[in-house]
Amino acid sequence: MTSQVSDAAKAGDKQRIVIFDTTMRDGEQAPGASMSLDEKLELAKILEEMGVDVIEAGFPIASNGDFDAVRRIAETVTESTICGLARAAPGDIERCAEAIRPAKRGRIHTFISTSPVHMKYKLQMEPDAVLEQVTRSVSLARNLCGDVEWSAEDATRTERDFLRRCVEAAIKAGATTINIPDTVGYSFPSEYGEVFRDLIENVPGADAVIFSAHCHNDLGLAVANSLAAVQGGARQIECAINGIGERAGNAALEEVVMALRVRGDRLAYDTGVDSRLITKASRYVSAITGFPVQFNKAIVGKNAFAHESGIHQDGMLKNAETYEIMRPEDVGQGATNLVMGKHSGRHAFREKLKGLGYELGQNALNDAFVRFKELADKKKDVYDDDIVALVDDALARAAERISITHLRVVAGTEGPQQADLTVTVDGAERSATATGDGPVDAVFNAIRKVAPHAAVLRLFQVHAVTEGTDAQAQVSVRLEDAGHIATGMAADTDTLVAAAKAYVNALNSLILRQEKTAPPTQIAS
Amino acid sequence: MTSQVSDAAKAGDKQRIVIFDTTMRDGEQAPGASMSLDEKLELAKILEEMGVDVIEAGFPIASNGDFDAVRRIAETVTESTICGLARAAPGDIERCAEAIRPAKRGRIHTFISTSPVHMKYKLQMEPDAVLEQVTRSVSLARNLCGDVEWSAEDATRTERDFLRRCVEAAIKAGATTINIPDTVGYSFPSEYGEVFRDLIENVPGADAVIFSAHCHNDLGLAVANSLAAVQGGARQIECAINGIGERAGNAALEEVVMALRVRGDRLAYDTGVDSRLITKASRYVSAITGFPVQFNKAIVGKNAFAHESGIHQDGMLKNAETYEIMRPEDVGQGATNLVMGKHSGRHAFREKLKGLGYELGQNALNDAFVRFKELADKKKDVYDDDIVALVDDALARAAERISITHLRVVAGTEGPQQADLTVTVDGAERSATATGDGPVDAVFNAIRKVAPHAAVLRLFQVHAVTEGTDAQAQVSVRLEDAGHIATGMAADTDTLVAAAKAYVNALNSLILRQEKTAPPTQIAS
Repeated sequence: MTSQVSDAAKAGDKQRIVIFDTTMRDGEQAPGASMSLDEKLELAKILEEMGVDVIEAGFPIASNGDFDAVRRIAETVTESTICGLARAAPGDIERCAEAIRPAKRGRIHTFISTSPVHMKYKLQMEPDAVLEQVTRSVSLARNLCGDVEWSAEDATRTERDFLRRCVEAAIKAGATTINIPDTVGYSFPSEYGEVFRDLIENVPGADAVIFSAHCHNDLGLAVANSLAAVQGGARQIECAINGIGERAGNAALEEVVMALRVRGDRLAYDTGVDSRLITKASRYVSAITGFPVQFNKAIVGKNAFAHESGIHQDGMLKNAETYEIMRPEDVGQGATNLVMGKHSGRHAFREKLKGLGYELGQNALNDAFVRFKELADKKKDVYDDDIVALVDDALARAAERISITHLRVVAGTEGPQQADLTVTVDGAERSATATGDGPVDAVFNAIRKVAPHAAVLRLFQVHAVTEGTDAQAQVSVRLEDAGHIATGMAADTDTLVAAAKAYVNALNSLILRQEKTAPPTQIAS
Repeated sequence: MTSQVSDAAKAGDKQRIVIFDTTMRDGEQAPGASMSLDEKLELAKILEEMGVDVIEAGFPIASNGDFDAVRRIAETVTESTICGLARAAPGDIERCAEAIRPAKRGRIHTFISTSPVHMKYKLQMEPDAVLEQVTRSVSLARNLCGDVEWSAEDATRTERDFLRRCVEAAIKAGATTINIPDTVGYSFPSEYGEVFRDLIENVPGADAVIFSAHCHNDLGLAVANSLAAVQGGARQIECAINGIGERAGNAALEEVVMALRVRGDRLAYDTGVDSRLITKASRYVSAITGFPVQFNKAIVGKNAFAHESGIHQDGMLKNAETYEIMRPEDVGQGATNLVMGKHSGRHAFREKLKGLGYELGQNALNDAFVRFKELADKKKDVYDDDIVALVDDALARAAERISITHLRVVAGTEGPQQADLTVTVDGAERSATATGDGPVDAVFNAIRKVAPHAAVLRLFQVHAVTEGTDAQAQVSVRLEDAGHIATGMAADTDTLVAAAKAYVNALNSLILRQEKTAPPTQIAS
């Protein structure tokens, strides 16, 4: 009753590497990277479409929000295995089993620390007690689910003999995947690969399970370590979109997948991932977390395929192969393509959206098209990125209770800055004037006046969508109210208008979420 | 007559690895990363202070700006070797020799492509002709300078036998360092290390030179490849601050240095770099290029040492070693330290600045202190990052011809946005009103009215310095006029005020630069 994915990989199906995405679990543990339930669900659908084998959707015991997210994703996604994390305690494991129960393919991932420093200071347990716990926790998990992954936290700083005994215990108790994380990002590739070789050779039963790598990037070695693990016998790699995660993050999914693809000559393995969706996934994760992707980020950075120097450009013109080992199209990065202007029609616009991976319903399409025309009037060149921002914005406005009809902001050296705002709340107009420290503060104070609420601002971030002063600004706002988190995004050539819309979008999402669990709220006035 | 650095490293002086920084050469080749002469000079001083062995300061034949930068740095820096790049042509090499002539220790770095695809399409030369060119170019360089580095461009896609013959020819002709670049970022660590082992074992004279690694990060493997090269016998690593460079960039200096330091047990080599200056260098490069550093960037990202999850925080409180393999202080990252508020005195402020690596003259200190007090009035919590932004801003305003006295901006949903601006130009007041597509556009149009100029806007970028709506916005503006580039930076709680100041700062730098080469300009009115 192990998962089909595991069966396929074990069967040596073209030396397939299982891709295990932990963007929503280890990735979300990055300070400030919280995602809402809806955002996680959307991301899970993108990962499923990409062909990710296992999606670690959260840590169900950690909060009701995490539980709900894992459960909803388990109900929705059918192609990928849905995994939840659990410590080595019955309460954790049972809660996790409950969250993944609706999944077509579910997995319980349970872990315990095995290194001397973790056992002594964090667990305050003797090694023998840890070993017993491994058997007990994996047995319980296996009784609740046929697909069980066991991790030795801080495995790379664990005494080798003890690690072998723990792995053996986990396999005997029914684990189907054994994960050997480099928890502190400390390993060198040669030593990390050797750990796998040793375990696979020396632990009884090792040939019946899948070994897995989970690497952190503290020394910039996460991808190299993951590949070294594969050379040592690992057949699953745990990774995250844009490499997000605790501290310096996890191995980046996009780098792992493309390294295996480009260097199939050296490492004869492949993944089931459709690499053309990588850029879409990267942008979505960047937008919902508010984490920018640095320009020179491998695979997904805006400069990853750009050639600046005369020498390189000359070479590229003569033969792209001189400096390019993969094509931007392979990862879904269009060239910086000037798409269309104010004379483009609805049909061309729909085709362009399809090319960018969006299939909108008629209403959403109409709304996006109107906004595209408005943008084309204001902005000379409309790029793919502008259209993506605009559509994401349109989607965010789907079910709004509050909408902005008028905003005027006065800013400058003579403070305080002032905002005059008019909104409609459930169809009725409300106006307010407010001041603040800076124009954004003034705008948000005005929103609090027209729509009083208890939510606290958790994140405010501005990105330029493209280049130049007439570029659209994309603003992300994250609000939190009684444990609920909502992120609003909006784009406009005026940063302050974008900020106001993003705040209102976040507020609308919060209201929507509260209504799902309680009778319709009346917005205080 | 080889450089002292090379001598020390060859002598096996504690297995020293030579750190070769190419932030200003390969780094500057990243699209949009141009740096001004003053910025390069300042960066060179930081690199020298850090203990970087070799600074590749530019490509002298490429432009007069590059030549001037290399020459000025060669005149100023005394501790590091100053290197210039040159193709395998007499004109390139002679121009490079001229640029580095003032250096206490200078190096000519000449290169030619050796891979079949590069020779055929880019050079359109037969292998034998390339081989002859190696001998000729290195001989010429060696006649002009005792320290010559030769690079086989696209070495990792070069036929091994041909590569051996080229390296042998370069050594015979007098090269003292042999660089084996992974130009397209294609190698795996195991194969890259093996290239060095092969060359060092099989090329006559290999024991008398230093071998060097130069890795690109297209598959996320640049640091791992650099370390594998060291295991294969390389004793120089070429790298860049923040890993900037062509496409996905070069190996990040900070990751290479810290991997060697943290894992001295595995790889018994060290560098001469004072790692405590890493964060300062990283922030400076990010500010002058306008390239953001992603939050989870290893070593220098704002989350690199942050622990979010309950599990990790719990472990950290019990014993920092549970999750930390290096301390933030080791790389000059303070903890997120709430520094001071409006009651802090001048002495405490000066001490804080020292701790952040700034030693200001009395005037600059006074100016920064006044601005700190203003900021403390507007902003509840003042962080280290706020102070860094504020001081950098003060330094940028050193010699200004134009300064802003009043700005008022009206923005909002009812366009066009409008800016009323008053500045003093050489002491005389000028005012203008302008409109634009968005408030930033309006502000810049107003500046163009009060101080007409021909410069073109090349970059406009906004970062939030810290979190929250009362956070300061830091704006970078890059202007270009007749080949001169100037970047202006400014920070303010009002984004629009910061944008205006940054633009004016850039304009002041441009005017200053033009005055150095021509009689004082009268600013048109």
